[in-house]
Amino acid sequence: MDIAILGCGAMGHIIKEMAENDGINVAAMIEPMNGESLADIEGNVDAVVDFSNPANLQMMIDFAGKGSRGGKPAAFIIATTGYTDEQTARIAELSKTAPVVHTSNFSFGVNIVEEVLRKITPVLRDNFDMEIVEMHHNRKLDAPSGTALMLANAMDPDGEYNKVLGRSGSCKRDKKDIGISAIRGGNAAGTHTVIYAGEDEIIEITHRANSRKIFATGAIRAVSFAVKQENGLFDMHDVLND
Amino acid sequence: MDIAILGCGAMGHIIKEMAENDGINVAAMIEPMNGESLADIEGNVDAVVDFSNPANLQMMIDFAGKGSRGGKPAAFIIATTGYTDEQTARIAELSKTAPVVHTSNFSFGVNIVEEVLRKITPVLRDNFDMEIVEMHHNRKLDAPSGTALMLANAMDPDGEYNKVLGRSGSCKRDKKDIGISAIRGGNAAGTHTVIYAGEDEIIEITHRANSRKIFATGAIRAVSFAVKQENGLFDMHDVLND
Amino acid sequence: MDIAILGCGAMGHIIKEMAENDGINVAAMIEPMNGESLADIEGNVDAVVDFSNPANLQMMIDFAGKGSRGGKPAAFIIATTGYTDEQTARIAELSKTAPVVHTSNFSFGVNIVEEVLRKITPVLRDNFDMEIVEMHHNRKLDAPSGTALMLANAMDPDGEYNKVLGRSGSCKRDKKDIGISAIRGGNAAGTHTVIYAGEDEIIEITHRANSRKIFATGAIRAVSFAVKQENGLFDMHDVLND
Amino acid sequence: MDIAILGCGAMGHIIKEMAENDGINVAAMIEPMNGESLADIEGNVDAVVDFSNPANLQMMIDFAGKGSRGGKPAAFIIATTGYTDEQTARIAELSKTAPVVHTSNFSFGVNIVEEVLRKITPVLRDNFDMEIVEMHHNRKLDAPSGTALMLANAMDPDGEYNKVLGRSGSCKRDKKDIGISAIRGGNAAGTHTVIYAGEDEIIEITHRANSRKIFATGAIRAVSFAVKQENGLFDMHDVLND
Repeated sequence: MDIAILGCGAMGHIIKEMAENDGINVAAMIEPMNGESLADIEGNVDAVVDFSNPANLQMMIDFAGKGSRGGKPAAFIIATTGYTDEQTARIAELSKTAPVVHTSNFSFGVNIVEEVLRKITPVLRDNFDMEIVEMHHNRKLDAPSGTALMLANAMDPDGEYNKVLGRSGSCKRDKKDIGISAIRGGNAAGTHTVIYAGEDEIIEITHRANSRKIFATGAIRAVSFAVKQENGLFDMHDVLND
Repeated sequence: MDIAILGCGAMGHIIKEMAENDGINVAAMIEPMNGESLADIEGNVDAVVDFSNPANLQMMIDFAGKGSRGGKPAAFIIATTGYTDEQTARIAELSKTAPVVHTSNFSFGVNIVEEVLRKITPVLRDNFDMEIVEMHHNRKLDAPSGTALMLANAMDPDGEYNKVLGRSGSCKRDKKDIGISAIRGGNAAGTHTVIYAGEDEIIEITHRANSRKIFATGAIRAVSFAVKQENGLFDMHDVLND
Repeated sequence: MDIAILGCGAMGHIIKEMAENDGINVAAMIEPMNGESLADIEGNVDAVVDFSNPANLQMMIDFAGKGSRGGKPAAFIIATTGYTDEQTARIAELSKTAPVVHTSNFSFGVNIVEEVLRKITPVLRDNFDMEIVEMHHNRKLDAPSGTALMLANAMDPDGEYNKVLGRSGSCKRDKKDIGISAIRGGNAAGTHTVIYAGEDEIIEITHRANSRKIFATGAIRAVSFAVKQENGLFDMHDVLND
Repeated sequence: MDIAILGCGAMGHIIKEMAENDGINVAAMIEPMNGESLADIEGNVDAVVDFSNPANLQMMIDFAGKGSRGGKPAAFIIATTGYTDEQTARIAELSKTAPVVHTSNFSFGVNIVEEVLRKITPVLRDNFDMEIVEMHHNRKLDAPSGTALMLANAMDPDGEYNKVLGRSGSCKRDKKDIGISAIRGGNAAGTHTVIYAGEDEIIEITHRANSRKIFATGAIRAVSFAVKQENGLFDMHDVLND
C-alpha cells in the first residue's frame, strides 16, 4: 500500500514512522507551507492522510481525479479541524466519488467516549448541567479543540444547546448551556473531560491521551478501512466497527 | 404511606427528614444496637428501609410475615452491604413473598455509571487494564465499598477477573486483574472512579456524591416503586426505568 | 458577643446557624434588597459580617461611626468580591478606624493553598505554564470566582502576567499568560485547581469545598480575631496565624 | 565526560540517548542479568548511573575503588528503590569515599511537591487525614512506588504514622494512618496524588509524569552535580538548589 501524507508537522512524522513500521510505503510527504503540492506526486497512491489545515482542502479535491488505487480513486483520511460549513459540504461532495474518513479525533478511546455521551446524555440532561474541559499543549493555535466540539455535538445532536466558549464576566448559566473551557500548557497530548453536574452528585468522563501515537494508530487503521470502500463519508465509528 | 427505618445512623436520619418532607409517615425508627426490633412496631407499615448492617437480616425476614401494606406483605428496601453469599440467597428467598429492592448504591448517577460500564467493558477489556478507586469518609468500617464491588461486578458479570483488593508488595499485574483501591479521609460522601488504562490512553469515569441526600432520594423513590409491586427482587435500574 | 449579618443569602443563614451554635448572638440579619439597613440596628454590635455585594459598601462605611464594641468601633468581616479599585481603596480607608478582615475565601484550605502558590511559583514559573480552573454551582453570577483571582494574584504578585479569562478562538498561548477557566454546574460549593504544566510533567493543586460551612467557620474565626484588634486591614493569613 | 549505565531497561536506554544528545559519552551499558559487570569496564568513567535493582549494590561498592574521575573516585547516581535498611546504611558508607546522589525520583516536579509536603503537613495534619495514591504502568513489579514512600516520608519525617499499604477488609481508619494506594494499568509513566481530607474540604496535590524523559533529565543533571563534589550523600534537593 502506498500513501501520501499531507502536512509535515509532528503528527505527519509520527504517522510516517508508524506506517513504515506497519509495512505501508509513504510515497510522499507534502508540506504546502513549503510550496509542495499533492499534484507533484508521481505514480499512484492508495490514500492521502491529511493532518494539515483547512486551506489545503481544494488541493485534495483537485487530487481526487488523479490519485488512484489501481484504477479506483484514492481514499482520503482527513484529520484537519476548523472547516467552515461550506467546506464541510465540499467534503461531503468529495465523498461521492472517493472514500473519505473525516473525524476530529482518531483515538479509539475518544470514540468510545463519544458513544457513551450519545447514550447517557438523553437520560441525564434534564437534571444535570453539562460542561466540557479540554487541555492541550501550549502551541495549539485554536480553542476549543475540534474534539471538544465533536463531543459537544454528540451530547447535543439537534443543536438545542448554546455552546459557551470560554466563560467570563457576568455569566448566569442557562439550563440550555454547554460550557466549553480550554486549558493550555506544557506539551501534553490532550485531555478531554465531560462533566454532568447535578444536585449533590457529579459524573465526570475523562479521556487522557498520553502520546500522539494513538492518533497515528487510528489514522492508519482508517487507511486500511478506507481503501476497501468504494466511496462514501465515514467516521471512526465506521472504522472501529468494521 | 407509612415506613419503618432500620438503622439510626446518619443515613437513617437523612431519610427520615426527607421522607417526612415528601409526606411519608415514618412510623418507626428502629436501632437494633439499642435493643430495638422491628417486632416492636405496632400497626402496619408499607415498607422497611434498611441502612443498618448484615446482622439484622433475620429481623427483616421475621418481620416479613408481620409487616403489611393493607393486607399485602410490606416491601423491603435494603441498602446494607457486606452480605455473605448465604445471606444473599436468603434475600432472594425473601423476595418470593415480598417486594425487595436491594442495591449497594441508591444514587441515580452511580446507576447510570453502572450501565455505562456494562456497555463499554466488552469493547475495552482486551486492550485496557481496569481499575477502581473509591474514596469515603474516615469512619467507614470496611473496604472496598459495596458500590465499588457492584461496579466491578458490572465490569465482570461472569466473574472471570481476579479482584485485587488493596494492592501492595510484590504484585505483578495480571491481565485478568481488576484492582480496587480504597481511600479514607475527611467526611466526603463518596467518590468512585473506574479507570480503563490502555497503551498511551486512559478513560476515567468518576461519580462524586456531594451529599448523602442523593442516597435518601433514591431510597424514597425505591419505596414508591416497591409498594406497587407484588413481590420480586429488584435493583435501582428497575426503579429508575419505572 | 453580638454580630450583625449583612446579606441574607445561603451564606448568611449558614453563618447565623453556626454563630448561634458557638454562642454568638446574631443581633440582626440585614438584607438591603428588602430595604433593610445596618442603620436600623438598635444597640451595639461587635462586628458586621458581610456576604452581600459591593453595592453595600457605603452602608458599612456609614455604620463605622455607629457600630460599637463597648466604646470601640465595630469590626468588619468582608467576604464580598468584585470590588472596583476605588472601592478597595475605600475599604483600606475604613480599616484606619476599625478592624477589617477582607478576603475572597474564608476556608482554611484555600488559604493554605495560597501560601503554597506564593512559595513554589517563583521556582516553577520559568519552566511551567500556569493555569487555573474553578468550578462553582449553576447560580453563580460572575466568572471567574474571586478566589480564582486571589490565587492568580498569589502566583503573580507583581502583575507581570496577562490573565486570560475564558480562552476561546484564535489564542496562541503566551509564556506570560495565566489562563483562568470557569466551570458552572450543579450545586457544588466550589473547586479550584491550579495547574503548572511543564515539559513532560504537570503539577496540579486542587482545593475542593464540600460544604459552604467551611466559609462560615472561617468567618466566625475571623470575627473572634477581629474584635481583639484596634484597627487595620487583615486577611485570613493573619487570622489563621493568630 | 564518560559515564557507565547500570541496568539496560527502558530507563537505561532513555538515559543513554539523552546523555549522548548532551555530549556525554556513554562508555558502557552494563546489564548484570546478562552476566555483565561494572568490573568489565576498561578505562575510567566519571560516574555510574544506576537504574537497576538492589541486588547490584555490592557491584557498585566493589567498583568504588576502581572507577575514576581523573584520579578521584567516580560518582554514583542511584535511582534504584527497595533497598533494605542495611543496604541503605552501606550506601551511606559508600558516600564517605565517593559522591552519591540517591533518590527515588529524579523529576524536578516531584521534588518540588516533596518540599511542599514538608512545609504544609505540620499545619494540616491535626485536622486533615492524609492519603497517597499512585498510578504506574502494568509491568511495575512492586507496590507502592518508591516515590510514594518518599512522599510519605516527607509528610511524616519522625515516623509517627502507620503506613497502610493497600487498605482492604475491616479497616477503621486511625487518625495516625497514612493510606497508600497503588493503581496499575496501561503504560503511563507515573502519577502521584497526595490527599489532605478534612471536614468539608479536601486539598489534593498531584504530580503527573507524561514521559520517563523527565527522570533521565534529572539523572543527567545529577551527574553534572555529582562529578563536582568530593564525596557525600546527596538527594535531588541538593542537585536542584545547586
